[in-house]
Amino acid sequence: MPATLQFWFDFASTYSYLSAMRIQQAAAEKRVAVEWHPFLLGPIFAEQGWNNSPFNLYPAKGRYMWRDMERLCAARDLPFQQPKNFPQNSLQAARLALAIGSTNQRGAFVRAVYSAQFGAGQDISDLRVLAECLASSGVSQDVMEQIGSPQIKSALFEQVARAKALHIFGAPSFIAKDELFWGDDRLDDAISFVASI
Amino acid sequence: MPATLQFWFDFASTYSYLSAMRIQQAAAEKRVAVEWHPFLLGPIFAEQGWNNSPFNLYPAKGRYMWRDMERLCAARDLPFQQPKNFPQNSLQAARLALAIGSTNQRGAFVRAVYSAQFGAGQDISDLRVLAECLASSGVSQDVMEQIGSPQIKSALFEQVARAKALHIFGAPSFIAKDELFWGDDRLDDAISFVASI
Repeated sequence: MPATLQFWFDFASTYSYLSAMRIQQAAAEKRVAVEWHPFLLGPIFAEQGWNNSPFNLYPAKGRYMWRDMERLCAARDLPFQQPKNFPQNSLQAARLALAIGSTNQRGAFVRAVYSAQFGAGQDISDLRVLAECLASSGVSQDVMEQIGSPQIKSALFEQVARAKALHIFGAPSFIAKDELFWGDDRLDDAISFVASI
Repeated sequence: MPATLQFWFDFASTYSYLSAMRIQQAAAEKRVAVEWHPFLLGPIFAEQGWNNSPFNLYPAKGRYMWRDMERLCAARDLPFQQPKNFPQNSLQAARLALAIGSTNQRGAFVRAVYSAQFGAGQDISDLRVLAECLASSGVSQDVMEQIGSPQIKSALFEQVARAKALHIFGAPSFIAKDELFWGDDRLDDAISFVASI
Protein backbone atom coordinates (compact mmCIF):
# COMPACT_ATOMS: atom_id res chain seq x y z
CA MET A 1 0.00 0.00 0.00
CA PRO A 2 1.49 3.36 -0.98
CA ALA A 3 1.89 6.15 1.55
CA THR A 4 -1.05 8.54 1.50
CA LEU A 5 -1.44 12.30 1.59
CA GLN A 6 -4.77 13.85 2.55
CA PHE A 7 -5.69 16.85 0.40
CA TRP A 8 -8.29 19.08 2.10
CA PHE A 9 -9.95 21.71 -0.07
CA ASP A 10 -12.95 23.99 -0.34
CA PHE A 11 -14.14 24.39 -3.93
CA ALA A 12 -14.35 28.17 -3.42
CA SER A 13 -10.64 28.43 -2.53
CA THR A 14 -8.47 30.01 -5.20
CA TYR A 15 -5.14 28.57 -4.09
CA SER A 16 -6.72 25.10 -3.91
CA TYR A 17 -7.17 25.34 -7.69
CA LEU A 18 -3.38 25.42 -8.04
CA SER A 19 -2.94 22.30 -5.92
CA ALA A 20 -5.88 20.39 -7.40
CA MET A 21 -4.45 20.69 -10.88
CA ARG A 22 -1.02 19.25 -9.99
CA ILE A 23 -1.32 17.10 -6.87
CA GLN A 24 -2.15 13.81 -8.62
CA GLN A 25 0.92 13.87 -10.84
CA ALA A 26 3.30 15.37 -8.27
CA ALA A 27 2.30 12.74 -5.70
CA ALA A 28 2.49 9.85 -8.20
CA GLU A 29 6.08 10.83 -9.06
CA LYS A 30 6.99 10.03 -5.46
CA ARG A 31 4.69 6.99 -5.21
CA VAL A 32 2.33 8.82 -2.90
CA ALA A 33 -1.44 8.25 -3.07
CA VAL A 34 -3.89 11.15 -2.73
CA GLU A 35 -7.06 11.20 -0.64
CA TRP A 36 -9.42 13.92 -1.85
CA HIS A 37 -11.17 15.63 1.06
CA PRO A 38 -13.74 18.27 0.16
CA PHE A 39 -14.90 20.36 3.12
CA LEU A 40 -16.40 23.80 3.78
CA LEU A 41 -14.35 26.72 5.10
CA GLY A 42 -17.46 28.76 5.98
CA PRO A 43 -18.09 27.16 9.40
CA ILE A 44 -14.38 27.36 10.23
CA PHE A 45 -14.12 31.01 9.20
CA ALA A 46 -17.30 31.73 11.19
CA GLU A 47 -15.59 30.48 14.35
CA GLN A 48 -12.80 33.00 13.65
CA GLY A 49 -15.43 35.73 13.47
CA TRP A 50 -15.43 35.99 9.67
CA ASN A 51 -18.71 36.01 7.78
CA ASN A 52 -17.00 36.27 4.40
CA SER A 53 -13.73 35.32 2.72
CA PRO A 54 -10.73 37.06 4.33
CA PHE A 55 -9.86 38.16 0.79
CA ASN A 56 -13.05 40.22 0.79
CA LEU A 57 -12.81 41.31 4.42
CA TYR A 58 -9.22 42.56 3.96
CA PRO A 59 -9.13 44.34 0.59
CA ALA A 60 -5.33 44.77 0.37
CA LYS A 61 -4.92 41.04 0.88
CA GLY A 62 -7.64 40.28 -1.66
CA ARG A 63 -6.18 42.61 -4.25
CA TYR A 64 -2.81 40.89 -3.80
CA MET A 65 -4.28 37.38 -3.99
CA TRP A 66 -5.87 37.99 -7.40
CA ARG A 67 -2.61 39.36 -8.81
CA ASP A 68 -0.66 36.50 -7.22
CA MET A 69 -3.04 33.93 -8.75
CA GLU A 70 -2.70 35.63 -12.14
CA ARG A 71 1.10 35.44 -11.97
CA LEU A 72 1.19 31.86 -10.69
CA CYS A 73 -1.30 30.56 -13.27
CA ALA A 74 0.63 32.28 -16.06
CA ALA A 75 3.88 30.68 -14.85
CA ARG A 76 2.21 27.26 -14.83
CA ASP A 77 0.33 27.63 -18.11
CA LEU A 78 -2.96 27.28 -16.28
CA PRO A 79 -5.96 29.20 -17.62
CA PHE A 80 -7.20 31.77 -15.12
CA GLN A 81 -10.28 33.95 -14.87
CA GLN A 82 -11.51 35.79 -11.82
CA PRO A 83 -15.15 34.67 -11.42
CA LYS A 84 -17.80 37.40 -11.16
CA ASN A 85 -18.77 36.28 -7.65
CA PHE A 86 -16.29 35.35 -4.99
CA PRO A 87 -16.43 33.27 -2.96
CA GLN A 88 -18.87 31.03 -4.79
CA ASN A 89 -21.23 28.73 -2.95
CA SER A 90 -19.36 25.43 -2.91
CA LEU A 91 -21.93 23.33 -1.04
CA GLN A 92 -23.37 21.32 -3.95
CA ALA A 93 -19.97 20.72 -5.52
CA ALA A 94 -18.63 19.43 -2.18
CA ARG A 95 -21.61 17.10 -1.76
CA LEU A 96 -21.23 15.75 -5.28
CA ALA A 97 -17.52 15.12 -4.79
CA LEU A 98 -18.27 13.15 -1.62
CA ALA A 99 -20.89 11.12 -3.47
CA ILE A 100 -18.27 9.90 -5.96
CA GLY A 101 -16.79 6.75 -4.48
CA SER A 102 -13.91 6.12 -6.88
CA THR A 103 -10.77 8.06 -5.98
CA ASN A 104 -9.75 8.57 -9.60
CA GLN A 105 -13.22 9.74 -10.61
CA ARG A 106 -13.42 12.06 -7.64
CA GLY A 107 -10.05 13.57 -8.56
CA ALA A 108 -11.13 14.08 -12.15
CA PHE A 109 -14.36 15.75 -11.03
CA VAL A 110 -12.48 18.02 -8.60
CA ARG A 111 -10.19 19.17 -11.41
CA ALA A 112 -13.19 19.75 -13.69
CA VAL A 113 -14.95 21.91 -11.08
CA TYR A 114 -11.88 24.04 -10.37
CA SER A 115 -11.21 24.45 -14.08
CA ALA A 116 -14.79 25.52 -14.70
CA GLN A 117 -14.65 28.10 -11.90
CA PHE A 118 -11.16 29.59 -12.07
CA GLY A 119 -10.16 28.56 -15.58
CA ALA A 120 -13.43 29.51 -17.33
CA GLY A 121 -15.09 31.83 -14.78
CA GLN A 122 -18.22 29.67 -14.47
CA ASP A 123 -20.61 29.53 -11.52
CA ILE A 124 -20.19 26.23 -9.66
CA SER A 125 -23.34 26.73 -7.60
CA ASP A 126 -25.23 26.16 -10.87
CA LEU A 127 -26.24 22.49 -11.11
CA ARG A 128 -25.96 22.61 -14.90
CA VAL A 129 -22.30 23.56 -14.60
CA LEU A 130 -21.76 20.70 -12.16
CA ALA A 131 -23.55 18.29 -14.53
CA GLU A 132 -21.11 19.30 -17.27
CA CYS A 133 -18.23 18.69 -14.86
CA LEU A 134 -19.53 15.18 -14.16
CA ALA A 135 -19.77 14.53 -17.89
CA SER A 136 -16.33 15.88 -18.75
CA SER A 137 -14.74 13.83 -16.00
CA GLY A 138 -16.50 10.62 -17.02
CA VAL A 139 -18.67 10.31 -13.93
CA SER A 140 -22.23 9.03 -14.18
CA GLN A 141 -24.96 11.64 -13.72
CA ASP A 142 -26.55 9.22 -11.23
CA VAL A 143 -24.59 10.82 -8.36
CA MET A 144 -26.75 13.93 -8.83
CA GLU A 145 -29.54 12.01 -7.12
CA GLN A 146 -27.50 11.81 -3.93
CA ILE A 147 -26.90 15.55 -3.68
CA GLY A 148 -29.66 16.05 -1.12
CA SER A 149 -29.53 12.65 0.59
CA PRO A 150 -29.18 12.48 4.37
CA GLN A 151 -26.08 10.29 3.96
CA ILE A 152 -24.21 12.83 1.85
CA LYS A 153 -25.34 15.79 3.96
CA SER A 154 -24.07 14.07 7.04
CA ALA A 155 -20.85 12.99 5.30
CA LEU A 156 -20.07 16.64 4.55
CA PHE A 157 -20.95 17.65 8.08
CA GLU A 158 -18.48 15.00 9.27
CA GLN A 159 -15.80 16.34 6.95
CA VAL A 160 -16.07 19.80 8.49
CA ALA A 161 -15.91 18.32 11.99
CA ARG A 162 -12.82 16.31 11.03
CA ALA A 163 -11.17 19.39 9.50
CA LYS A 164 -11.70 21.29 12.76
CA ALA A 165 -10.32 18.37 14.79
CA LEU A 166 -7.25 18.38 12.53
CA HIS A 167 -6.73 22.12 13.31
CA ILE A 168 -7.30 23.03 9.68
CA PHE A 169 -7.86 26.79 9.32
CA GLY A 170 -7.57 27.35 5.57
CA ALA A 171 -7.29 25.65 2.19
CA PRO A 172 -5.59 23.92 0.58
CA SER A 173 -4.35 21.89 3.54
CA PHE A 174 -2.37 18.67 3.44
CA ILE A 175 -2.21 16.12 6.23
CA ALA A 176 0.16 13.22 6.70
CA LYS A 177 0.55 11.50 10.06
CA ASP A 178 0.23 14.36 12.54
CA GLU A 179 1.75 16.98 10.27
CA LEU A 180 -0.36 19.75 8.76
CA PHE A 181 0.89 21.66 5.72
CA TRP A 182 -1.04 24.73 4.60
CA GLY A 183 -1.10 26.32 1.18
CA ASP A 184 -0.11 25.35 -2.33
CA ASP A 185 3.38 26.59 -1.43
CA ARG A 186 3.74 23.60 0.93
CA LEU A 187 2.47 20.88 -1.41
CA ASP A 188 5.94 19.72 -2.43
CA ASP A 189 7.13 19.65 1.19
CA ALA A 190 4.06 17.64 2.16
CA ILE A 191 4.62 15.08 -0.59
CA SER A 192 8.31 14.77 0.31
CA PHE A 193 7.39 14.27 3.94
CA VAL A 194 4.95 11.48 3.09
CA ALA A 195 7.47 9.83 0.79
CA SER A 196 10.06 9.87 3.60
CA ILE A 197 7.98 8.13 6.27
CA MET B 1 23.54 50.24 -11.60
CA PRO B 2 22.15 46.83 -10.67
CA ALA B 3 18.41 46.20 -10.54
CA THR B 4 17.00 46.66 -7.06
CA LEU B 5 14.54 44.75 -4.91
CA GLN B 6 12.90 46.44 -1.93
CA PHE B 7 12.67 44.18 1.13
CA TRP B 8 10.01 45.37 3.59
CA PHE B 9 10.06 43.80 7.03
CA ASP B 10 8.88 44.23 10.61
CA PHE B 11 11.42 42.96 13.12
CA ALA B 12 8.65 41.13 14.98
CA SER B 13 7.69 39.07 11.91
CA THR B 14 8.70 35.41 12.06
CA TYR B 15 8.68 34.71 8.34
CA SER B 16 10.78 37.84 7.74
CA TYR B 17 13.56 36.09 9.69
CA LEU B 18 13.69 33.45 6.95
CA SER B 19 14.02 36.07 4.22
CA ALA B 20 16.44 38.32 6.11
CA MET B 21 18.90 35.48 6.50
CA ARG B 22 19.05 34.61 2.79
CA ILE B 23 18.03 37.61 0.71
CA GLN B 24 21.48 39.19 0.38
CA GLN B 25 23.09 36.09 -1.09
CA ALA B 26 20.10 34.98 -3.16
CA ALA B 27 19.81 38.44 -4.72
CA ALA B 28 23.56 38.77 -5.34
CA GLU B 29 23.53 35.49 -7.28
CA LYS B 30 21.22 37.17 -9.80
CA ARG B 31 23.03 40.53 -9.63
CA VAL B 32 20.13 42.13 -7.81
CA ALA B 33 20.72 44.77 -5.12
CA VAL B 34 18.66 44.80 -1.91
CA GLU B 35 17.10 47.85 -0.26
CA TRP B 36 16.37 47.14 3.41
CA HIS B 37 13.06 48.71 4.48
CA PRO B 38 12.14 48.36 8.14
CA PHE B 39 8.57 49.34 8.95
CA LEU B 40 5.90 48.61 11.56
CA LEU B 41 2.98 46.27 10.93
CA GLY B 42 1.09 47.48 14.00
CA PRO B 43 -0.54 50.53 12.37
CA ILE B 44 -1.39 48.48 9.28
CA PHE B 45 -2.92 45.66 11.32
CA ALA B 46 -4.83 48.26 13.36
CA GLU B 47 -6.50 49.48 10.16
CA GLN B 48 -7.63 45.89 9.56
CA GLY B 49 -9.18 45.87 13.03
CA TRP B 50 -6.42 43.80 14.66
CA ASN B 51 -4.90 44.93 17.94
CA ASN B 52 -2.48 41.98 18.05
CA SER B 53 -0.66 39.62 15.70
CA PRO B 54 -3.09 37.51 13.63
CA PHE B 55 -1.07 34.53 14.89
CA ASN B 56 -2.31 35.35 18.39
CA LEU B 57 -5.79 36.40 17.34
CA TYR B 58 -6.32 33.15 15.38
CA PRO B 59 -4.86 30.34 17.52
CA ALA B 60 -5.06 27.56 14.89
CA LYS B 61 -3.09 29.76 12.50
CA GLY B 62 -0.57 30.65 15.22
CA ARG B 63 -0.08 27.04 16.26
CA TYR B 64 0.58 26.15 12.63
CA MET B 65 2.98 29.04 12.08
CA TRP B 66 5.27 27.98 14.93
CA ARG B 67 5.40 24.39 13.66
CA ASP B 68 5.95 25.62 10.10
CA MET B 69 8.82 27.87 11.24
CA GLU B 70 10.35 24.98 13.15
CA ARG B 71 10.25 22.75 10.07
CA LEU B 72 11.54 25.43 7.69
CA CYS B 73 14.41 26.48 9.97
CA ALA B 74 15.42 22.85 10.44
CA ALA B 75 15.43 22.32 6.67
CA ARG B 76 17.63 25.41 6.22
CA ASP B 77 19.98 24.73 9.14
CA LEU B 78 18.85 27.96 10.78
CA PRO B 79 18.74 28.07 14.58
CA PHE B 80 15.20 28.59 15.86
CA GLN B 81 13.70 29.40 19.23
CA GLN B 82 10.21 30.65 19.90
CA PRO B 83 10.71 33.83 21.99
CA LYS B 84 8.82 34.03 25.30
CA ASN B 85 6.86 37.06 24.13
CA PHE B 86 5.31 37.36 20.72
CA PRO B 87 5.08 39.70 18.98
CA GLN B 88 7.98 41.64 20.45
CA ASN B 89 8.07 45.42 20.40
CA SER B 90 10.10 46.19 17.28
CA LEU B 91 10.05 49.99 17.47
CA GLN B 92 13.60 50.62 18.71
CA ALA B 93 15.11 48.03 16.40
CA ALA B 94 13.34 49.60 13.42
CA ARG B 95 14.56 53.08 14.37
CA LEU B 96 18.13 51.87 14.77
CA ALA B 97 18.05 50.12 11.41
CA LEU B 98 16.87 53.33 9.77
CA ALA B 99 19.67 55.27 11.49
CA ILE B 100 22.30 53.08 9.82
CA GLY B 101 23.13 54.73 6.51
CA SER B 102 25.30 52.06 4.91
CA THR B 103 23.31 49.36 3.10
CA ASN B 104 25.76 46.61 4.00
CA GLN B 105 25.88 47.62 7.66
CA ARG B 106 22.11 47.88 7.81
CA GLY B 107 21.78 44.40 6.34
CA ALA B 108 24.26 42.98 8.85
CA PHE B 109 22.39 44.62 11.72
CA VAL B 110 19.04 43.30 10.47
CA ARG B 111 20.41 39.76 10.38
CA ALA B 112 21.88 40.17 13.87
CA VAL B 113 18.55 41.34 15.31
CA TYR B 114 16.56 38.50 13.72
CA SER B 115 19.15 35.97 14.87
CA ALA B 116 19.04 37.32 18.42
CA GLN B 117 15.25 37.10 18.49
CA PHE B 118 14.34 33.93 16.62
CA GLY B 119 17.68 32.13 16.72
CA ALA B 120 18.49 32.79 20.38
CA GLY B 121 15.09 33.76 21.83
CA GLN B 122 16.30 37.17 23.04
CA ASP B 123 14.18 40.26 23.66
CA ILE B 124 14.83 42.85 20.97
CA SER B 125 13.00 45.60 22.84
CA ASP B 126 15.94 45.50 25.29
CA LEU B 127 18.48 48.16 24.31
CA ARG B 128 21.33 46.01 25.64
CA VAL B 129 20.39 43.30 23.16
CA LEU B 130 20.31 45.86 20.37
CA ALA B 131 23.72 47.22 21.45
CA GLU B 132 25.13 43.70 21.14
CA CYS B 133 23.57 43.42 17.68
CA LEU B 134 25.30 46.65 16.65
CA ALA B 135 28.60 45.32 17.97
CA SER B 136 28.32 41.91 16.33
CA SER B 137 27.46 43.48 12.99
CA GLY B 138 30.33 45.96 13.15
CA VAL B 139 28.20 49.09 13.44
CA SER B 140 29.30 51.99 15.63
CA GLN B 141 27.35 52.41 18.88
CA ASP B 142 27.00 56.08 17.91
CA VAL B 143 23.73 55.33 16.09
CA MET B 144 22.16 54.66 19.51
CA GLU B 145 22.13 58.41 20.03
CA GLN B 146 19.75 58.84 17.11
CA ILE B 147 17.16 56.40 18.41
CA GLY B 148 14.93 59.14 19.81
CA SER B 149 15.74 61.89 17.32
CA PRO B 150 12.94 63.68 15.48
CA GLN B 151 14.58 62.80 12.16
CA ILE B 152 14.54 59.06 12.83
CA LYS B 153 11.06 59.10 14.36
CA SER B 154 9.74 60.83 11.31
CA ALA B 155 11.70 58.56 8.96
CA LEU B 156 9.94 55.53 10.49
CA PHE B 157 6.59 57.28 10.30
CA GLU B 158 7.30 57.86 6.60
CA GLN B 159 8.18 54.19 6.11
CA VAL B 160 4.79 53.12 7.46
CA ALA B 161 3.04 55.64 5.23
CA ARG B 162 4.98 54.35 2.20
CA ALA B 163 4.16 50.75 3.09
CA LYS B 164 0.46 51.61 3.16
CA ALA B 165 0.72 53.45 -0.14
CA LEU B 166 2.39 50.36 -1.63
CA HIS B 167 -0.61 48.24 -0.48
CA ILE B 168 1.63 46.24 1.87
CA PHE B 169 -0.48 44.22 4.31
CA GLY B 170 2.06 41.82 5.84
CA ALA B 171 5.73 40.94 6.09
CA PRO B 172 8.02 40.06 4.53
CA SER B 173 7.01 41.95 1.40
CA PHE B 174 9.09 42.52 -1.70
CA ILE B 175 8.56 45.32 -4.19
CA ALA B 176 9.98 45.74 -7.67
CA LYS B 177 8.47 48.20 -10.13
CA ASP B 178 4.74 47.97 -9.43
CA GLU B 179 4.80 44.32 -8.40
CA LEU B 180 4.25 43.28 -4.79
CA PHE B 181 5.35 39.84 -3.60
CA TRP B 182 4.31 38.70 -0.14
CA GLY B 183 5.94 36.10 2.04
CA ASP B 184 9.25 34.27 2.17
CA ASP B 185 7.69 31.79 -0.26
CA ARG B 186 7.74 34.49 -2.97
CA LEU B 187 11.32 35.72 -2.44
CA ASP B 188 12.77 33.68 -5.29
CA ASP B 189 9.99 34.77 -7.66
CA ALA B 190 10.59 38.39 -6.67
CA ILE B 191 14.32 38.16 -7.33
CA SER B 192 13.74 36.43 -10.67
CA PHE B 193 11.26 39.14 -11.63
CA VAL B 194 13.75 41.91 -10.83
CA ALA B 195 16.52 40.11 -12.69
CA SER B 196 14.29 39.86 -15.78
CA ILE B 197 13.36 43.55 -16.09
